[in-house]
Amino acid sequence: MVEHDSLALDTIFRALGDATRRAMLGELAAGERSVGDLAAPFAMSLAAASKHIKVLEGAGLIRRDVRGRTHVCSLDPAPLMSADQWLGIYRRFWTGRLDTLEQLLRAEGAAPPPKPPLPGKEGE
Amino acid sequence: MVEHDSLALDTIFRALGDATRRAMLGELAAGERSVGDLAAPFAMSLAAASKHIKVLEGAGLIRRDVRGRTHVCSLDPAPLMSADQWLGIYRRFWTGRLDTLEQLLRAEGAAPPPKPPLPGKEGE
Repeated sequence: MVEHDSLALDTIFRALGDATRRAMLGELAAGERSVGDLAAPFAMSLAAASKHIKVLEGAGLIRRDVRGRTHVCSLDPAPLMSADQWLGIYRRFWTGRLDTLEQLLRAEGAAPPPKPPLPGKEGE
Repeated sequence: MVEHDSLALDTIFRALGDATRRAMLGELAAGERSVGDLAAPFAMSLAAASKHIKVLEGAGLIRRDVRGRTHVCSLDPAPLMSADQWLGIYRRFWTGRLDTLEQLLRAEGAAPPPKPPLPGKEGE
């Protein structure tokens, strides 16, 4: 992985490491919001909320569009996709576990154990 | 989402927000490692590496097993699965985009002929 991607992932994962920021992304998943609307549900000052918004912006997770006197935020899912791709490397651990569990259950229910599935069934 | 899960996700995402810690998880994905082995590839003191290992341990991402005088670390993928589940809420944004692209390509392949292209959209 190149250095640039690595720095980007640092910023993305750190931005996600806060419940308020994750809740803001949840709001934006439903549609664009003004900075005021985005800050409203949280028991914090507008300045504190703006700080969170800036962290999300810094990670590329939200875009800010200035319309007259209103700053409108929208979700940019691209960094979430990068995080998802990184996690994808590890996905085999839990999907693999489910496969093992299934094999154990099948082995317990019937002897001899069934033959392995035909090739070409992978990647479901 | 309950408060407990939210705090756990904070800790998990923050632990992932560092290239050294992600590289350590990558090492552990290949199999268990002693603390010394895990620290070796990085240009940092054993104390600094141990700090990273403790952060990963705190997030539940690694387990430490004391065998005589050796501390052996192994990957616990469960917190990665939690992070993956959280990201799953947003997956529709990029899979949706691919679906739209596919629909556009399929629509282009079928008659009636498309309207004249918009200005600046010609060529690739």
